[in-house]
This record gives sequence, C-alpha cells and structure tokens, in this order.
Amino acid sequence: MQSPRNYIEENKQGFINELIDLLKIPSVSADPHYKKEVLLTAEEVQKRLQEAGCDTVEICETPGYPIVYGEKIIDKNLPTVLVYGHYDVQPPDPIDLWNSPPFEPVIQKTELHPEGAIFARGACDDKGQMYMHVKAMEFMTKNNVLPCNVKFMIEGEEEVGSESLEWFLSRNQEKLSNDVILISDTGMISKDAPSITTGLRGLSYIEVEVTGPNRDLHSGLYGGAVANPINILTQMIAQLTDENNHITIPGFYDQVEDLSQEERSRMAEAPFNLENYKKSIGISNIHGEATYTTNERNSIRPTLDVNGIWGGYTGEGAKTVIPSKAYAKISMRLVPNQDWKEITQLFKKHFESLAPDSVKVEVKPHHGGQAYVTPIDGIEYQAADKAFQETFGKSAIPQRSGGSIPIVSMFEKNLGSKTILMGFGLDTDAIHSPNEHFGIWNYLKGIETIPYFYKHFTDLFQKNK
Amino acid sequence: MQSPRNYIEENKQGFINELIDLLKIPSVSADPHYKKEVLLTAEEVQKRLQEAGCDTVEICETPGYPIVYGEKIIDKNLPTVLVYGHYDVQPPDPIDLWNSPPFEPVIQKTELHPEGAIFARGACDDKGQMYMHVKAMEFMTKNNVLPCNVKFMIEGEEEVGSESLEWFLSRNQEKLSNDVILISDTGMISKDAPSITTGLRGLSYIEVEVTGPNRDLHSGLYGGAVANPINILTQMIAQLTDENNHITIPGFYDQVEDLSQEERSRMAEAPFNLENYKKSIGISNIHGEATYTTNERNSIRPTLDVNGIWGGYTGEGAKTVIPSKAYAKISMRLVPNQDWKEITQLFKKHFESLAPDSVKVEVKPHHGGQAYVTPIDGIEYQAADKAFQETFGKSAIPQRSGGSIPIVSMFEKNLGSKTILMGFGLDTDAIHSPNEHFGIWNYLKGIETIPYFYKHFTDLFQKNK
Repeated sequence: MQSPRNYIEENKQGFINELIDLLKIPSVSADPHYKKEVLLTAEEVQKRLQEAGCDTVEICETPGYPIVYGEKIIDKNLPTVLVYGHYDVQPPDPIDLWNSPPFEPVIQKTELHPEGAIFARGACDDKGQMYMHVKAMEFMTKNNVLPCNVKFMIEGEEEVGSESLEWFLSRNQEKLSNDVILISDTGMISKDAPSITTGLRGLSYIEVEVTGPNRDLHSGLYGGAVANPINILTQMIAQLTDENNHITIPGFYDQVEDLSQEERSRMAEAPFNLENYKKSIGISNIHGEATYTTNERNSIRPTLDVNGIWGGYTGEGAKTVIPSKAYAKISMRLVPNQDWKEITQLFKKHFESLAPDSVKVEVKPHHGGQAYVTPIDGIEYQAADKAFQETFGKSAIPQRSGGSIPIVSMFEKNLGSKTILMGFGLDTDAIHSPNEHFGIWNYLKGIETIPYFYKHFTDLFQKNK
Repeated sequence: MQSPRNYIEENKQGFINELIDLLKIPSVSADPHYKKEVLLTAEEVQKRLQEAGCDTVEICETPGYPIVYGEKIIDKNLPTVLVYGHYDVQPPDPIDLWNSPPFEPVIQKTELHPEGAIFARGACDDKGQMYMHVKAMEFMTKNNVLPCNVKFMIEGEEEVGSESLEWFLSRNQEKLSNDVILISDTGMISKDAPSITTGLRGLSYIEVEVTGPNRDLHSGLYGGAVANPINILTQMIAQLTDENNHITIPGFYDQVEDLSQEERSRMAEAPFNLENYKKSIGISNIHGEATYTTNERNSIRPTLDVNGIWGGYTGEGAKTVIPSKAYAKISMRLVPNQDWKEITQLFKKHFESLAPDSVKVEVKPHHGGQAYVTPIDGIEYQAADKAFQETFGKSAIPQRSGGSIPIVSMFEKNLGSKTILMGFGLDTDAIHSPNEHFGIWNYLKGIETIPYFYKHFTDLFQKNK
C-alpha cells in the first residue's frame, strides 16, 4: 500500500479546518439545553462520511440521540471493520478555567506539542479521534486502497452512558455484523511510545439525595436539634472508604481478581516517573489504596469518587441555614469480573443502611458498564501492532486503562466481535477538563496509521481463513 | 397613657400597606447584585422615620452599607431608648420553593394566622418587626404620649455579620448614648405565651476550601491514584463531630458552662410538644448531642452546621470528573463564655490538621459574634414584662434563643448599655427559609405593646434615680 504521508501532507490544512468546524458545535449530551446542537452535529458527521466515500450514510433514530451509520461494502468475501466513535462531548464547565472559549477552537503550541494543538471541548474526546477515521477512510477511497468493507457507527450519548446504544445494537445485529470493531477513544503512553489499551475499567454512576427537614431552617433556631442533611451526607460518604482507602461496601471486592506478583512486576516495567506525574497535576503527594502503586490504583483496582456535591447556600457571603436537602454524584470504577449492576445494588443497600432515621435517603442509579480485557494474541491486536510499527517504527506497549468504555463489552455481547482500541491522545490532553486539546501531530499520525490497520487486518484475516 | 388600640384600628390598613411597600425592595445584603436596592431601602427607612416624628434623620455612611439614624430628644433629664433594627434581608433562594415571589408580598390566612399573614422575604426578619417600632413611634408622637427620648439605629448588614456596625458604634458613642437598647429581632413562644429572650448564642462563620490537583481530572484515568478534594472534604467534615454528636475540636467545650440540674429542670417546664415539633418540619426523628433535650440542644449547647457545600459537577446528567477544588460554608453556634474569635482559631488549627498531605486546605474566617445573657432583674426586663402584661394579660416567659444577634454584646462593649429583646414573631414564620411570613395579628400586637415599654421603662428609670 502506498504511504498515506503525501496525501496527508497535501491535505492537512483542510483536515485541521474541518475538525475545527466540527468542534465549534457544542454537542453536550448531558445538558438538554444543547439538544439542537447535538442533532446538528449528527447531520455534520453524516455529511462528512458521505464526502469520505461511504456509499450509504443514514441518521438512525433511537429513544435518545441518533446514531450516524455509514458503510462501504466492496466484497462480501472480504472482512468488515466496524468503526465506532461518538460525536457528543463532556460539559465544558468549569467555564471560567478555560483560557479560550471551549467551543471557539484555537491552535496553540505547547511543550509537548511544538507543532501546535487544537484547544476545544471534544478536540481529543472524541471528535478529534473519531474524525481521524473519517479522513483515513477518505485517503483509502480516494486512492483506491481500501482493502476491506467498512462500517461506521458514530453515537451521540457516550458521555451520558450510551443509553440508546444497546437498544440500537440489539435491533440491528445483521446490519452491524463485522469482523472487528475499531475505536480511537483512549490514549497512548507518549508520542514515541505507541500503545494499545488491552484493559478498561467498568463504571457504576450513582446520584444520592439526603433529605432532612421539609424546608430550609434557620441554623440558629434549629441548629443542634435537627439532622443537617449536609453533615449527614458527609458522614455517610466518609464511611464508604476506610483509613487504607479500601471501599467498605460489603461484597464489593468479592469478584476482584488479585493479579499475580509476576503480572504486577510486568506492569511495573511501564515507563512512569512519579515526580513528573505529581508535577503535571500540581499535587504534593499521591493518595490511594494502601499496598498498591499509582499505576495499579488507576488501572487494576476499583475506585470510588465523588464527582459532584451540592447543598445549602453556595452563593456569595453567608447564609445561616440548615438546608432541606443535600446531593452528591458518586461513581465507582470497576475491574474485570465485577458486574456493574450488582455493584450498584450493593452500593444502594449499603448507602441506605448508613442513613440515620433522622433523614431520608434516595439512591438513584445513573448508568454504568462492564470492565473489559482484550486478548493480545488475537489478529486484531497483531494488526494494530503492525500498523504502529509501520508509522512509529516500534511495537506497541499493551496497557490497561483506568477509563471506562462500557460499550466494548456491550459489543461483544450483542455483536460477538472483539474490539481493538488504538488511541492517539495523551494523558496531558485534559479530556473532561478545562483546556482540553489534541496535538496536530497526534491527529495526523492517527490518520496515517489507521489505513495500515485495515491492510494488516485484512491480510491476517485471510491467512487465518 | 391612652391605649394605642383605637389608633391602630383606624390606621391598620395603612400600616400593612406601608410594610408591604418596604418588602417589595429586595435588600439582600449578601449579594452585591442587589446593592442599588439595599441603598434604596435605607432611603425609604429614612423617609418613614421622618414621617413617624423623628426630629432629625440621617443616612450615615460606613465602610459597607449605610446606617439610618434618627432621633427625637424631648428632655435631657428623661431616659433615652435606642431602637435597633435592620433593613437588609436574607437571600431568598431556593427561589423555586416559594409559593409566591419573595419580593411580591401577598397576604394569606394560615392555621396559626386566621387574621392573615404577610408572605415575603423580610416580612418578619426584620423589616416587619423593625417597622412595628416606627409605627409605635408614630402613635406616641401623633398623640403626644412619648414619655422619653428616642433614638433609632437601623442597619443594612445584619444578615452578613454587621461588619460596619462596630466601626460606627466606636465613632459615635456620644451620639448613640442611651439608657436601654430595644430590639425586636427574635420570636415569642406562641400567640398566647409572650416571651422575652434572655439568652442568645454566639456565632463563628467560616468558609473552607480544599484543593487537590491543579485542574479537573478524568476520574477514570486518575481515579484511585489522586486525592479527590470532595472525598477528602467529606472525611474532614465528618471528623468534626463524633458518634454522640459532640464537636471534636480540641478545647471547644473548655469555656462552656454546665447548667445545674435545677436550671435544666426549669427550662424543661417551657411548653414543648415533640410530635408537633417533628410534624412542623416534617422529620421522622430528631438528631443531636447525646444526653441533651431538643430545647437544650438549640439554646444552651454549642453546635456545628454545614450551611453550604459545593464542588465538582452539579449540573444535569453525569460528568466523570475529579474536581480541582471543593468548598464548604460551616458555622458554629456558641454559648456564653465561648469567645468566637478564639473558637474560630481552634477550628482553623484543627481543620487544617485533618488534611492529608495530598491536598491543600484553606480556612477563611467569615464573621462571628459573642453569646449574650440578659439579667431578668434589671428594669429593662421588668418594663418589657409589664408591657406584655398590659396587652397580653399575662407575664412574659424568659427564654434562651438558639439564634445569634452578635451586636447585642457589641452594644454592651461599645455603649455600655443593656439590651432588651421583645420578639413578636413565631418559630413557624420560616425566617431564613422559603415562604417567610409575619402574622398581621403579631405585627399589630407589637405596635400596641411597644409604647407600654416606653411608659414603664421611663417610670422605673425615674423611680430608680
């Protein structure tokens, strides 16, 4: 196959401008106020897939936001690659911490990105990484080097739990049939250390509400005599972990696999510099589960984080009030074998048991997904590894990620196919944070590498027939 | 002295309308957005005091909001009553829990107020109770029954800690010299149980900020390995009280007086129905410091309440984030002998000591005030008691309030005079809460009772010369 390099060199300015246009649309799926923009983004993606050479592209309605489906079938005897991505983005807040408006993309040079990086919400997660596949498709069709069939499935609810995706999968198994699912929604260790994510953590996301008195009360007249829902909520959350930062929910660890010392030693070989890690996020010390390393804590161990908390008076100045209600959003990252629905029930039962009879507590499960591990001896892993060797000159490092892409296990269940995760973002890209960005070098490198995956996967697939 | 009854009967509609006009101005001192309205309210109060018969009324500038000062000096040999009140109000939020807009007063009948009550922010605290004194003044001047000199000092920062008041007092001791300070900013036990507040709790109001990473992080990629400031904040707050709801701050109780069993028994005689108490605020059970009764918990015991907490994602839907910062507003109610500045320092030292080295913590003292006890053998107490006997036909019950009016001890320190607290509101008036209201019966009863205080205080004062 001819190298994509020249084609990318000739078209890179267009590739960058097209992505920037896509990033200008605030497709925040978590906030209903952006509904119009989310739908508009789906139409944009449809247009881009058509221009990239798909034969048919449709916007498929679901109970939630639509899924954009496109395909190009060149030969029923050839394998089919199904590309998954998402066109929705995380909410941008806290807005005031952005150096430039989150939906007015700007290109800035940084220490890690001397070629410049695009700063905008969704630049990396996942509009940027998703659009690499659209441009790789364009290269292959325009130059007649597409070696197999391709299907695209780009959804709009990934940041809110992909709630309509399983509904869609179960109703379109024929249409979505494939030999491998290709996703770029993860990261790589560094620009000269390509990596393939082989493990993902599961997720259980929950919202809790503690109710004390039926109205806000004057803390002077009632203070000390009535349960304050904020004080109670803090006490309940504090009891969810012990002094070793173990999670105290009964049964929580029952299904967690204990890795062998040998596996842990192999993990420890991955390049990691604690001082740089602390420096990059400005902390004076790390914090986590006793007897585990930082890399273990954020990959092979389950966790519990409060993602949001609110209650009482949070405005300027002072208000001496005992609020009627206090709230928190709490999520748990899960590891292989932990069933997210079972863990959600264990949390609910335990959290409710922590409430004194002076308050009412409501636990609302929000969404979740199972953890997943990719076998590194499969042809999809080998094809991805070869693709990295072609463009980076070195083999990829398999790594477990702390993040969750619940849909990966959902795919295996509904479509019976394996997923390969080729990530081109960096940990420092600040996804889900203010000033999210995506290096132009990474963006173009992804477009260059992806076509090789198609080539090697098709070759290996046919050899293994 | 002729009874104020007829005058009130003839003018009550005007009295009600004038108060309603005053309540329409949103004088929220805690929120800078209302600055114009706060200043406008001061001008309104000045106008009303002039109309009520004050000889001179001025708006006195301070480093913060102005203080409205008015006086009528009829004879240097007669005693002087200084009336204190405030024209600012609490923030109205949560707005959506109000049945009618907080600054569009409406009159509604309730079970406790068959004559109707005025619903609006500030209806009772303190515009309504402050305005009773303006109308009582009007009665006395219009009917030439004012028995002594009168001074009014109406401030605009009570709900944010009266920060400019001490500045003003220390600079105007001559001008403010008086023989007693009269305040209506407290409540009465019930419509047929007049009461005089003889004890007030002190206050220390603090804001805390916990900082983890220097930016919001993805909870999947960093969860478990980095201190989450919300989790840490909840653990720190939970440690401020023990399983008996005792406050754990070292030295916190050192100055707290233990009341004798006899005093506690006398307190226990005050009418109190636990079932009605729970019903009135919709709780299934009370909650507080072990070995103390509800009435003791909210009057003679110090407390610690979180008045507000916030951090992370609090919008609709889900965001899997580890926030950079988490915040809380925490206030402590103090009892006689606890020095609020010393307690604030004890809190700061202890709270900082609870922080692990994986986060930074900042403790910002906000404001505070000392607790206070009124002697019931003083002529000011006796005069108030006689006044209640004239209009209620029964003696007043002395009671300790859980609330704080820090300025009471400030007055004694700066002006050397005692304060008498004649309250006409009810616990159910929902001050500081949505749907604050003030009974029209209570409002008019206050206007009727106040002139008798002037009469009896002047008599007792001269007898004691």
